[in-house]
Amino acid sequence: MATTEIESVSKLANEFSKLPGVGKKTALRYAYYVIGLSEDGAKTFADSIMEVKHKVKLCEECGNFTEVSPCAICSHRKQNVICVVKEPKDVLAVEKSRAFNGVYHVLHGTINPILNIGPNDIKIKELLDRVSKYNTEEVIMATNPDVEGDATALYIAKLLKPLGVKVTRLAQGVSMGSELEFADEVTLSRALEDRKTL
Amino acid sequence: MATTEIESVSKLANEFSKLPGVGKKTALRYAYYVIGLSEDGAKTFADSIMEVKHKVKLCEECGNFTEVSPCAICSHRKQNVICVVKEPKDVLAVEKSRAFNGVYHVLHGTINPILNIGPNDIKIKELLDRVSKYNTEEVIMATNPDVEGDATALYIAKLLKPLGVKVTRLAQGVSMGSELEFADEVTLSRALEDRKTL
Repeated sequence: MATTEIESVSKLANEFSKLPGVGKKTALRYAYYVIGLSEDGAKTFADSIMEVKHKVKLCEECGNFTEVSPCAICSHRKQNVICVVKEPKDVLAVEKSRAFNGVYHVLHGTINPILNIGPNDIKIKELLDRVSKYNTEEVIMATNPDVEGDATALYIAKLLKPLGVKVTRLAQGVSMGSELEFADEVTLSRALEDRKTL
Repeated sequence: MATTEIESVSKLANEFSKLPGVGKKTALRYAYYVIGLSEDGAKTFADSIMEVKHKVKLCEECGNFTEVSPCAICSHRKQNVICVVKEPKDVLAVEKSRAFNGVYHVLHGTINPILNIGPNDIKIKELLDRVSKYNTEEVIMATNPDVEGDATALYIAKLLKPLGVKVTRLAQGVSMGSELEFADEVTLSRALEDRKTL
């Protein structure tokens, strides 16, 4: 197949294949798309990659991605309720629900003994400092509903309680619009445990 | 939601969303991946986009993408059998089958009255020139098995026959590994028409 490989195209496809969820075939499709771009189009694409790298940093308050620190959320909202998430993209997910108007705290990971990530490797200290500094009323633990997310939430809750702050966890249960038939056992058993009176 | 939008990230996500099959959500995931890249990693990515734009051109023989013209295939294989395809990526598909060792001719489109693409808008003249020049024995029409692909194949076959060249078309039938139950009517009727004696 060596005869059909074009070096620069293979190189670009290799870069694309590093994107989350992109396999070799898709990466090659993306590279072929770039060949078809105009010179200006390719330059805009390449430049916007470097621009993101140069402009985006972490908010010194919440640890979310931002171009100006403190970020727009931290500088426009009250710090009395903090929603703690694992990664910057989780902030987008919660914002999209339009159900929260407090601030965030991005841990940049969860405690994971298998991957050798301990409490000091994620931004827990920064969270404690914020809670003390702003006299936070409530911290909502919105880490993922998996083993690491649960463990991290419990660990942080333990550290926060002595500070007199209310610590809550996102409710777990069956997803809206899903079918009971296809819900996994753990989800269903949690939904039963946390059942509400109507 | 304006508070969570980061200008440079939105710009990059917009570039990613132009890639084939990429929606807004996926584009944003890709942009977030770029934020996490090292400075060097981002530079390699951006540079490889520009490198492809600068190095890749069309082979003057077959019209396929290449860095050197004539391409590796045209300069290493006999020109006696030409496989005619719609787009450069179709060359990859045929090569992957390992069932063909002749040369290719990329039309860069198919005749499509709806999109206002006529015979002069695709590389038909170049194909006729090649067939005359190299005294080609056979031209295999490997345009897509759809209305435009079939029409283009028939149109080109008509032009080639006076030159005394054998013109063939890829066989159509049920796909290997597929289930008869799910084959569409046209495919099934073609497979019946072209049935073979065992």
